[in-house]
Amino acid sequence: MKISLGLKFDGRLQVLDQTQLPWKEEWIQIRDSYHMVDTIKTLQVRGAPLIGVSAALALAMDAKNDQPDLAARAKALREARPTAVNLANAIDRMKKWIDKGDIAGLLREAETIFDDEETASQRMAQNGQAFIGRNEGVLTHCNTGGLATVGLGTALSVPILAYQNGLDIHVYVDETRPLLQGARLNTWELQKHGVQHTLICDNMAGSLMAEGRVQRVFVGADRIALNGDFANKIGTYSLAILAHFHRIPFYVVAPLSTVDTRARTGADIPIEERASEEVLGARGPEGRVTWAAKNTNTWNPAFDRTPCNLLTALITEEAVYSREELDAGVLAEALGKNSRSC
Amino acid sequence: MKISLGLKFDGRLQVLDQTQLPWKEEWIQIRDSYHMVDTIKTLQVRGAPLIGVSAALALAMDAKNDQPDLAARAKALREARPTAVNLANAIDRMKKWIDKGDIAGLLREAETIFDDEETASQRMAQNGQAFIGRNEGVLTHCNTGGLATVGLGTALSVPILAYQNGLDIHVYVDETRPLLQGARLNTWELQKHGVQHTLICDNMAGSLMAEGRVQRVFVGADRIALNGDFANKIGTYSLAILAHFHRIPFYVVAPLSTVDTRARTGADIPIEERASEEVLGARGPEGRVTWAAKNTNTWNPAFDRTPCNLLTALITEEAVYSREELDAGVLAEALGKNSRSC
Repeated sequence: MKISLGLKFDGRLQVLDQTQLPWKEEWIQIRDSYHMVDTIKTLQVRGAPLIGVSAALALAMDAKNDQPDLAARAKALREARPTAVNLANAIDRMKKWIDKGDIAGLLREAETIFDDEETASQRMAQNGQAFIGRNEGVLTHCNTGGLATVGLGTALSVPILAYQNGLDIHVYVDETRPLLQGARLNTWELQKHGVQHTLICDNMAGSLMAEGRVQRVFVGADRIALNGDFANKIGTYSLAILAHFHRIPFYVVAPLSTVDTRARTGADIPIEERASEEVLGARGPEGRVTWAAKNTNTWNPAFDRTPCNLLTALITEEAVYSREELDAGVLAEALGKNSRSC
Repeated sequence: MKISLGLKFDGRLQVLDQTQLPWKEEWIQIRDSYHMVDTIKTLQVRGAPLIGVSAALALAMDAKNDQPDLAARAKALREARPTAVNLANAIDRMKKWIDKGDIAGLLREAETIFDDEETASQRMAQNGQAFIGRNEGVLTHCNTGGLATVGLGTALSVPILAYQNGLDIHVYVDETRPLLQGARLNTWELQKHGVQHTLICDNMAGSLMAEGRVQRVFVGADRIALNGDFANKIGTYSLAILAHFHRIPFYVVAPLSTVDTRARTGADIPIEERASEEVLGARGPEGRVTWAAKNTNTWNPAFDRTPCNLLTALITEEAVYSREELDAGVLAEALGKNSRSC
């Protein structure tokens, strides 16, 4: 039995429908990999590490159920979302066993991916403790807690663990338009953990910093290039500039499974654009509301790219890389690749 | 008869209910000054210049209708919203005639305030033309068009007039959380004028700039200090920093009625904080939706302060003041006051 805040696997795979949170805790029984693809595309399952783990487990389940065309299923899963690279990395790990036709190997690999992410999550939370202090205000963007991964999370795990260790932490939560993962998911998680938090609109972050209420910014990543440039939820780039302007340390917390060893810089990271409907309104338990005419032109990139020179440090499960180290190509070196400096 | 996009006055005063836009064009017949106070507090009437004009006209109407306690009514209007200073400035102009008990004078003054703002609006739009070019992308925040004032508007009047003068302009519209004035009102106005526009979430502005799509940022102001620091809709400060980082010119367009001659710097400008309900969800024609629990702690400043050193220039009806001129105290000098430099 593998279990996390948003996923249960005991041969059968269930995922928590994150589009229904915080209003309803509804579990979806995954039928097969194609069903998994749908739940990833609709963001019922989201969070870079979690979609990698979920996809691997769905594929393992299909193998166990003697489904045909595992390679085609793997390909469909791999292409379900273009920016988060953990998905591609997880499927690549599974691919070796598909090629061998080793069903037991597939199941083992999927469970190992789960365990690896869980361990990574614990270690990231630990590694982050060196960068957080008593009574600090921490600003975060999008959901990077237990719902986004397995374990305590990535960026959000740092203040949560700090709180559990007795530090008095206050988390400021960007609502994270257009899909409001911060407002819906972080407040839900932080409440569960008992961590004090304040919800703000994304455009209030600058003022909050100017008021001296933010001592640190922690964000996750959906894909990291070898030079430390990274893609994360839209709004992260703006936040990095605001932190830079106010001289507030800005950290990325992500497992090494988020590094794309084929991406030398951020320019190599594709950015997913999503439907205009998301920008024209929002959804709640009461239904959907719209605030601009249907034919209004919108721009809706789901992610943005932040250059590594705006980063204070990248916190992974293995090591913490400072901007200077990223600049010197240490991440690339650790992964056995070459990279341009940032 | 005085008429603008959001106001009609022919002895009777009607205002367009801006909380119903863009879904419904519903006019409210103002009963008296206290009714006007309510419509200002609920933001049915909003926009710094427009609330000044509306308040003056409501007071004139009360005088004509022989209502008692004009001084008390003036005070209630003056205190309806704390940040926009045009309201206080308009009421101060009316106050002289109340003290004299001159009803005809009150009516004349209110109509003159209307005319002054209309003329100011035309001149600002004209003065702004020196700062906009063919095929440019213009980013704006909150609604600063004809709905926010009388005439073409403040910041939004610049690209609208440029378009009418034959320049091919594209306006990028920040949705402007929490009350979505950009999404609801700017798209409605720009569509009426036939100006090409694209709606984005506030947190996408940085990426849009990084992509090279924004050549200029134009915003309005709710109160300007003598040194050029100014308060405007929450999110403006972040935008100023983003523009500064990307070396994109950033202009404030506002009438001199927005200058608070008692405010030496931005620190002297009070910032209104509003109910948490606005951050916890949003409204549409379909009703209200909520995305975080009712007891979630929020921070909801309606405005923020931008220091004058992030400004490229302040465009008023009288003159354009560069950052260097503001720094040299030219605005304070023009208004016959002293100021610290920025």
